[in-house]
Amino acid sequence: MRMVDLIAKKRDGGELSAEEIRFIIEGYTKGEIPDYQVSALAMAIYFRDMTERERADLTMAMVRSGEQVDLSAIEGIKVDKHSTGGVGDTTTLVLAPLVASLDIPVAKMSGRGLGHTGGTIDKLESIEGFTVEFTREEFIDKVNRHKIAVIGQTADLTPADKKLYALRDVTATVDSIPLIASSVMSKKIAGGSDAIVLDVKTGSGAFMKTLEDARALAEAMVDIGNRLGRRTTAVISDMSQPLGYAVGNALEVREAIETLQGRGPKDLEELCLALGGQMVVLAGKAGTAEEAEEKLREVLRSGKALEKFREWIASQGGDPNVADDPDRLPRAAYQIEVPAREKGVVAEIVADRIGMAAMMLGAGRTTKESEIDLSVGLVLHKKIGDSVEKGEPLATIHANSERVDEIIEKIRAGIRIGDRAEKPVLIHDVIAATG
Amino acid sequence: MRMVDLIAKKRDGGELSAEEIRFIIEGYTKGEIPDYQVSALAMAIYFRDMTERERADLTMAMVRSGEQVDLSAIEGIKVDKHSTGGVGDTTTLVLAPLVASLDIPVAKMSGRGLGHTGGTIDKLESIEGFTVEFTREEFIDKVNRHKIAVIGQTADLTPADKKLYALRDVTATVDSIPLIASSVMSKKIAGGSDAIVLDVKTGSGAFMKTLEDARALAEAMVDIGNRLGRRTTAVISDMSQPLGYAVGNALEVREAIETLQGRGPKDLEELCLALGGQMVVLAGKAGTAEEAEEKLREVLRSGKALEKFREWIASQGGDPNVADDPDRLPRAAYQIEVPAREKGVVAEIVADRIGMAAMMLGAGRTTKESEIDLSVGLVLHKKIGDSVEKGEPLATIHANSERVDEIIEKIRAGIRIGDRAEKPVLIHDVIAATG
Repeated sequence: MRMVDLIAKKRDGGELSAEEIRFIIEGYTKGEIPDYQVSALAMAIYFRDMTERERADLTMAMVRSGEQVDLSAIEGIKVDKHSTGGVGDTTTLVLAPLVASLDIPVAKMSGRGLGHTGGTIDKLESIEGFTVEFTREEFIDKVNRHKIAVIGQTADLTPADKKLYALRDVTATVDSIPLIASSVMSKKIAGGSDAIVLDVKTGSGAFMKTLEDARALAEAMVDIGNRLGRRTTAVISDMSQPLGYAVGNALEVREAIETLQGRGPKDLEELCLALGGQMVVLAGKAGTAEEAEEKLREVLRSGKALEKFREWIASQGGDPNVADDPDRLPRAAYQIEVPAREKGVVAEIVADRIGMAAMMLGAGRTTKESEIDLSVGLVLHKKIGDSVEKGEPLATIHANSERVDEIIEKIRAGIRIGDRAEKPVLIHDVIAATG
Repeated sequence: MRMVDLIAKKRDGGELSAEEIRFIIEGYTKGEIPDYQVSALAMAIYFRDMTERERADLTMAMVRSGEQVDLSAIEGIKVDKHSTGGVGDTTTLVLAPLVASLDIPVAKMSGRGLGHTGGTIDKLESIEGFTVEFTREEFIDKVNRHKIAVIGQTADLTPADKKLYALRDVTATVDSIPLIASSVMSKKIAGGSDAIVLDVKTGSGAFMKTLEDARALAEAMVDIGNRLGRRTTAVISDMSQPLGYAVGNALEVREAIETLQGRGPKDLEELCLALGGQMVVLAGKAGTAEEAEEKLREVLRSGKALEKFREWIASQGGDPNVADDPDRLPRAAYQIEVPAREKGVVAEIVADRIGMAAMMLGAGRTTKESEIDLSVGLVLHKKIGDSVEKGEPLATIHANSERVDEIIEKIRAGIRIGDRAEKPVLIHDVIAATG
């Protein structure tokens, strides 16, 4: 088998066999097939697409390129959740205790990552004492005992995907549905969960700007999961503006706690119930999404979800009192309001710009070595469709420096005030697992 | 400027500016832009094509990547000829003295190359004493004195093209009209000629299998030449079967001499007159192709072209008597006939298979280090449309070993005998230079 012939086959619209895909991914992982052939293939895939069978085979070949986590020692059906990424996405912090309080095991492996804010682990580390420093065995034991634990991602997961993603990033081959879908799904499947709920974001703040693209990606990932024996459901949700109000690490933890207390932002709560409902269904604890969401509303109302949060934080060495007193979280030195310069209705919130403002405050990493300031960020006071008076605060900046003029401008540039606007639909669609 | 953005631009159907193309080719030549980005770009070009302006800019950027030969010390308009390659293509050996005998300077830089037989220089070296070992100054002096000389290609020509071609070869991006056209034209333009005649082959033995593809390539190259101030004309000629009868080095020299003597194969003579006619027009020595061809027929008839051949061979140290006595050329030890197994009409001659048979006899190079046997090859006795009796020879093998069973089979497999066949058209079209 020669790589150049396989590139030509895909270039000409042919379908690569499972064996051919395995040859490519194994050869690439071992360094036997060079970057320049793989980037040409990636570009051919960009133009020619892949069949559903090819996508599943590519995913599985990447799963097999590294370690496959074995979570079989955890009792029950392990359902993982993955978001394609957005601004102010605090869902994991709410969802994990919410679902775990129904006795569904939540064994979360999470990264720190680059972005406007830190990853789930960074956010949780804003709680005093909280740690993810324990072994795989301790992790599994914690999940069995508390139904919930979070640990750092193993470095040995899907090395083929890591190498391929880095190559795609510099060869303009990131925006390809089959390559995105197989990348995401390979990591989830190697992570060892039995079923997967995907939160596919769409809108100006998401990777997939249009609903059409988001649906194509969602369908591709659901199909891969189901073909590979992992029941997978995708929820397509709105990212035309940040989710909730808070953007920042400690600020998002506070918002998550408020949501678990039943007084969080409505959009965040609604999305958590939608995603959580699908997780409960896949875990076999409810027959329908409606039934599942009712159960979740009940644990939210009863305080059981908040109690699970306390238990979780304590089990990982953190201060559980934060659940009742969020003021214990780190707080930035300055709170500075961003007043509206005109009266009207919020017509647009460019999520990327709001995220960039948080980044400029120090809430996120630009490189792997960057230090994160867990206390900084911003809290919106208005969302799309809200009326605003001249001088009324659009947002509050939480900063450790008084020099925030540039950030105020960034936020103002990200919030367009017009005459009228409709509140965006939050949940666009659900692509359900088959079988 | 970032290479990844330029790849994305082309991927999305955009047009690269002259500056962007120069950035890519300079960066690639210097090793600042890696292979994996250039191969992704090449694949994007494969799918998105390039505008005529982009093609000309790419050609010129490759010309500028290396030495540009200065032939201005040669008097008159220098017209170069290039063939896209086929089997048994002896035209240069006939054309060069034919055109030079009209006092048009023929300053031929030629390669040895890989292929079924050697290159023009290899073929000429089958004449005793013939050499290309002289300096650039001596070469120019010879052209001024005799109107004809051949020398080896400089190694410093178009390094960007060399690097890009090697990359395309292993990334399935060879078959792209803009990339083929700019590759050919960059070498011709860097070679310093004032005008160019292209012999674009089409048919089973050619790189361009269909007339449509050949025409697209011809038009692309003519447009590049004319945009870059080199008047360029393309002749689209048939390669559905080998040109002439001989395939092999000394065998092709003999056939060239016979053609100059006025008793060569009709197709070879006709093509030489067509290509030569265009060269004469571009050199400004005739107003029309018809007038030019008439002049060439006259020098052929009068023996002036054969006399120019003698003068040329002698000026490069070779034995001029070969022009009158081709038996002085090296001759293989065995001549073995390949008889027809059935009666009928030759319906198809698969040029690639005939070329491969010559290669197996030792007439060509498989690697740069291969030794060529100048004496071996084969001579066809039948062409498409010719009747053949059972047992009548289809071809004669010239070999230095008696063990030719496999080669006989190869030739037989390459010649299909049927009930009827029409002789193929030799000259499909002429794409004339503008301006």
